[in-house]
Amino acid sequence: MLKDLLFPRGVAVIAGSKKGIELAKVVNRSLKHSYFLGEYSEEVVRQAFKCFDGVILIMSFSGAVRVVCKYSTKKGEDPAVVAVDSSGKFAIPVVNSHWGGNELASLVANSVGGSAILNTQAEEVGIRPLEHLAKLLYAKFEDVGKLAKVYSHVLDGGILCAENFDPPSGFDYVVTRGNCSFTVKLGRGCKEDELCLIPYELFVGVGLKDEARDIEDRVPGILAQYGVPLSRVKGIASIKERAKSVADKLNLPFRLFSVDELNSLDHDCLSPPSDKLREEGIRGVAEASALMMAGKGARLLLRKVKAHDLTVAVAGVVDV
Amino acid sequence: MLKDLLFPRGVAVIAGSKKGIELAKVVNRSLKHSYFLGEYSEEVVRQAFKCFDGVILIMSFSGAVRVVCKYSTKKGEDPAVVAVDSSGKFAIPVVNSHWGGNELASLVANSVGGSAILNTQAEEVGIRPLEHLAKLLYAKFEDVGKLAKVYSHVLDGGILCAENFDPPSGFDYVVTRGNCSFTVKLGRGCKEDELCLIPYELFVGVGLKDEARDIEDRVPGILAQYGVPLSRVKGIASIKERAKSVADKLNLPFRLFSVDELNSLDHDCLSPPSDKLREEGIRGVAEASALMMAGKGARLLLRKVKAHDLTVAVAGVVDV
Repeated sequence: MLKDLLFPRGVAVIAGSKKGIELAKVVNRSLKHSYFLGEYSEEVVRQAFKCFDGVILIMSFSGAVRVVCKYSTKKGEDPAVVAVDSSGKFAIPVVNSHWGGNELASLVANSVGGSAILNTQAEEVGIRPLEHLAKLLYAKFEDVGKLAKVYSHVLDGGILCAENFDPPSGFDYVVTRGNCSFTVKLGRGCKEDELCLIPYELFVGVGLKDEARDIEDRVPGILAQYGVPLSRVKGIASIKERAKSVADKLNLPFRLFSVDELNSLDHDCLSPPSDKLREEGIRGVAEASALMMAGKGARLLLRKVKAHDLTVAVAGVVDV
Repeated sequence: MLKDLLFPRGVAVIAGSKKGIELAKVVNRSLKHSYFLGEYSEEVVRQAFKCFDGVILIMSFSGAVRVVCKYSTKKGEDPAVVAVDSSGKFAIPVVNSHWGGNELASLVANSVGGSAILNTQAEEVGIRPLEHLAKLLYAKFEDVGKLAKVYSHVLDGGILCAENFDPPSGFDYVVTRGNCSFTVKLGRGCKEDELCLIPYELFVGVGLKDEARDIEDRVPGILAQYGVPLSRVKGIASIKERAKSVADKLNLPFRLFSVDELNSLDHDCLSPPSDKLREEGIRGVAEASALMMAGKGARLLLRKVKAHDLTVAVAGVVDV
């Protein structure tokens, strides 16, 4: 379960060549929240790097390294990239292994019967990497450059204090109170011995079929399942008036969008619409309405989750 | 032996952090023609990428990927880069695995008791990569971009014809005569179904101690040992008049340089001088005189080889 929480924007699977297509399909079927984007092309890779939390490239590592060098931007912005050779023997985190790459390599190796080649220090020492906190808390490091310093503190056996959040499971070296020489803080305004995680302001988009019932309980339930902190949700949006019941229950503002408004949204990372939506001429509901309510600079944070007759997505904004 | 021929400019070993220094020293001691350049710094890495045929980075794979993205230039120019985690568990070719990276990873893994993680197509199919030809023939592909096309031909079971050279051992799919749909040619002026390897013009620098004897036989012997084609050597250079005997034996021009001339050479890739040379105020003899005779645009091709009382180095020039 925790592993899913590292990839709320989903995982893209790309075949480096025709030879890799079969394996790509196998990997895609075995993972939750994965999307087979097809064979390698400039456009496919660019979209994968921009819009997903994980990218699986079915190609040699050194081929994958060339791809990463071409398309990666910077630590914390790029997805975790895993290379799997076309025979499925090895899965290797190519970049951002601390941002979920190690976990993704393990998941893929399990699914194809290969070996995950993990070799980062955090993994050697057996600690959960700090980068996971940013994902789990729906927040962004104010200064990623500070991480190296904090790591050497931790690898020397140091303890970190958590401020304004409860450490998720697996972070034994992060405590809520104690004698710490370094503090990880959910919030702004960090001193030198503090590492700030700036929280995103969150907006939830909801798509509904007419038969959907109990949505005021089910939507918060889905959000909780993906670790979305309800206390940080600033609004609910939809194209269906009925979704207001979710906002009312959570005591939050509600925005109703028209189909035309949603279709006017220009955003690269929207999931492909379902056949039904396409027929109705709608490009997307949950993701589009969340992004639209979040406003300028919004980032898709939780790709749409489908639960039978409803869909939920989360967008967020943050100034760093 | 053949493995050495892939790294005539030597292999640089770099420790990613203090933690990696011990392992870096172990790796360095176990390899022939390796140089421990010290702990990671901009300058050290830049020199390693520019001046060596192989670079071993003692750091996580994803760390090494960041380094490669920053310092690599292009295929065929960069060294083969291998990442070894600081516990020595895995040796992974990061980039240019066909340019010796796979072999280097195997050598390192053997030396530290770890596993080499190899996953390129040529390795899977069990053929020796074409890129080795460029190294073994002291030549440069006219158009590296054509390699992918030739590979798919070979991986489909195709046979290549060799023109103007004898295929070195291990290239069963390259034949000197036969019904080939593609030709690898040592020379210039290639048609569409030909892959050209432009030969370097070679210049040999010789350093001598006073007691060195039989140099007119020993120098050609050393060159042959490193696969340097004597027929392509265009000249011999030294600061010692006695080295002319080598030129005379091979019927080649000889250039005598003064210490001042050699010291005026501005070239990034010279090996550090021996203590004795340093005492005498000489920056280098074999490499410097070879580069100087080769002239403008010369590239160091064989880093100085020491054989008791003499040193030999090769520089080359080519227009591509």
